[in-house]
Amino acid sequence: MRRYLEAQAPAFLQDLRTFVRFPSVSADPARAEAMRGCARWLAGRLERAGLEHVRRVDAGGPPLVLADWLHAAGRPTVLIYGHYDVQPEGPASAWSRPAFCGDVSGGFLHGRGSADDKGQIFAHVMALQALLSVTGRLPVNVRCLFEGEEEIGSEHLRPWLDRHLADVRADVVVISDTPMRARNRPALTESLRGLYNVEIGLARGGEELHAGQFGGAVTDPVAALARLIAGLDRDGRVQIPGFYDDVRTLSPAHRRALALAAPSDRELLASAGHSPPCGEPGFSAFERTTIRPALTVTGLAGGYLGAGSKNAIATHAKARLSFRLVPDQDPVRVQRALVSHLAGAVPRGCRLVVRPQAAVRPVAIARGAPALAHAAAAFETGFGRTPVWLRAGGTVP
Amino acid sequence: MRRYLEAQAPAFLQDLRTFVRFPSVSADPARAEAMRGCARWLAGRLERAGLEHVRRVDAGGPPLVLADWLHAAGRPTVLIYGHYDVQPEGPASAWSRPAFCGDVSGGFLHGRGSADDKGQIFAHVMALQALLSVTGRLPVNVRCLFEGEEEIGSEHLRPWLDRHLADVRADVVVISDTPMRARNRPALTESLRGLYNVEIGLARGGEELHAGQFGGAVTDPVAALARLIAGLDRDGRVQIPGFYDDVRTLSPAHRRALALAAPSDRELLASAGHSPPCGEPGFSAFERTTIRPALTVTGLAGGYLGAGSKNAIATHAKARLSFRLVPDQDPVRVQRALVSHLAGAVPRGCRLVVRPQAAVRPVAIARGAPALAHAAAAFETGFGRTPVWLRAGGTVP
Repeated sequence: MRRYLEAQAPAFLQDLRTFVRFPSVSADPARAEAMRGCARWLAGRLERAGLEHVRRVDAGGPPLVLADWLHAAGRPTVLIYGHYDVQPEGPASAWSRPAFCGDVSGGFLHGRGSADDKGQIFAHVMALQALLSVTGRLPVNVRCLFEGEEEIGSEHLRPWLDRHLADVRADVVVISDTPMRARNRPALTESLRGLYNVEIGLARGGEELHAGQFGGAVTDPVAALARLIAGLDRDGRVQIPGFYDDVRTLSPAHRRALALAAPSDRELLASAGHSPPCGEPGFSAFERTTIRPALTVTGLAGGYLGAGSKNAIATHAKARLSFRLVPDQDPVRVQRALVSHLAGAVPRGCRLVVRPQAAVRPVAIARGAPALAHAAAAFETGFGRTPVWLRAGGTVP
Repeated sequence: MRRYLEAQAPAFLQDLRTFVRFPSVSADPARAEAMRGCARWLAGRLERAGLEHVRRVDAGGPPLVLADWLHAAGRPTVLIYGHYDVQPEGPASAWSRPAFCGDVSGGFLHGRGSADDKGQIFAHVMALQALLSVTGRLPVNVRCLFEGEEEIGSEHLRPWLDRHLADVRADVVVISDTPMRARNRPALTESLRGLYNVEIGLARGGEELHAGQFGGAVTDPVAALARLIAGLDRDGRVQIPGFYDDVRTLSPAHRRALALAAPSDRELLASAGHSPPCGEPGFSAFERTTIRPALTVTGLAGGYLGAGSKNAIATHAKARLSFRLVPDQDPVRVQRALVSHLAGAVPRGCRLVVRPQAAVRPVAIARGAPALAHAAAAFETGFGRTPVWLRAGGTVP
């Protein structure tokens, strides 16, 4: 097996570079063709690895890529989930190399998506190929489910799953999409935060008004939206009544164990570009990003910021709010609490518009689950170190 | 004189339509050629009207258009000021006709700028031409000063004036750029609000961060800017310490007289698209827009509001604030108070950037000034009605 992997390494690396070079930005409708091309390539690669029933499925968004190998009779079934879409790369000026170059230099492969989640998907594909090539079989039954909407809330996956449970039925789901503790310190992640993304808008009726003629006597929807947003959070605590009702409290012993495994405030903030400490009082930076919910204003716009100036009272303003949720918060209940809170704060003469964008439940798994012992043992074999138990701030559907 | 004006009316109307058709949007650098074309046309028209020393002057922005007639020896000199630039027209979809069509229909001339300030400039030009054509002279010395930056803060006018006072020396300045009380109710405006426009930005160092991985432990500059803005105004009162120190208080008698002349709250709010009442307690809508200062957030942006979604903690956010000032507020003192107030409210890890954009002092004139009696008499002759005394919310440099 080791000989096979060493012989294949250069070819595997070339394949991963090809995978990373697809600009598969799910948020950008102009990249739809790149999304389809990436799915096509991934499906072809799974065929080559020796998987069966490889198929691309139209669930309403970018294709789902599915494959399986189900000949380990009497053995458990493992579902490997991953995503081939990536975050928008933003302005080219912010990159020292092209975002999708796939260059290899200094022991690193460079490119948006190489660490989230294409590298991880491809590690599984290589492992499956090696096992099938060298031993002719897999030790368990395996299903692969790779989607292309993870970065935008997996809108189409959930309804598709409801209709196709038989295609994904498994005893264990393996998701490689959360951080390691350090380069040589593997981690098992026992919880993920959920997500509730929503766009809110404030509109006053009518047309733009001259700020000289009417400023002082007419509601300014831009300032009003700023006030609404400012009222949602104070010192890192969300101010929506009922927001914390379902937040699960960890025991002091559990928090102590987590603190031993987790990065320190200094480490975590260093990895965030040396940010100064900030957030909910009474919790470490790691806890603030894993066992506590958080609100980020991911977008805000109103009025005119173009060339020159425009002295007008705007007609509307809008914002995108992203709530990260923790067990046992429920996006539906959070939405209800948010809408009821905002409705009471809308100024006279403004209309509130609420457009939900994505909702994903948080998740936590029990440490006693038997598959986790196997995972820990596998990590020990591969890395020569016991994995740490972590919690993750990110969201996986 | 009446015969001359009646004979010229169709030609005058055509000329005004030509004037309105220039898309002279000073805020838009792409319209620089339209600005120059409009200035060239206006200068030519002043020549035709019989004015002398017609010239276009480069003061650093769009051309100033100057002209004079100085043969009324021993008589006072009147400076007529106006502006040929207009506000940006915004999206075409918001217009029932093209913004710069200059169509005449139903007794109205349609087009951005026809009421602010091209129509008023042209009324003066027609009057000067009629007097010069019919009587061969003007009853007073006249200077014209028409600029192209009024809508963006007249950045270059003030320094130019400081260097060329001799070119504009006058006993009286006539500005026709404020509202009438109603179609047949002329008004003399005794005060104008000033202006302090500023762009403020909040930037946290470093790059965009994953909102799942870091949300809750890193300062969100978009939310932080919303909080800064929310803290600037409460219930229509600006919350910057010292902001109201220089605001002149009107006597109860003066306020009563103003209330008799001014539009009612209902009238004013109807003209603002039937906005609901809002603003500083203890003042009428008219007072809120004339004798009281006001803050409008004319622009606000941060994060991502494009297609799809992007779950990132942004690196920066910015806003444009427009303060309307009243006598005896001073933009320089207001800026100092704002900066000192904001500096105390910047969250850790964020850097505040303040970019002043425009500053214009408020102005008030004494009712006893002799020229005002002549102006009132002229209005009575023209309209058959005594003008009312008003105050204006807008700003003229």
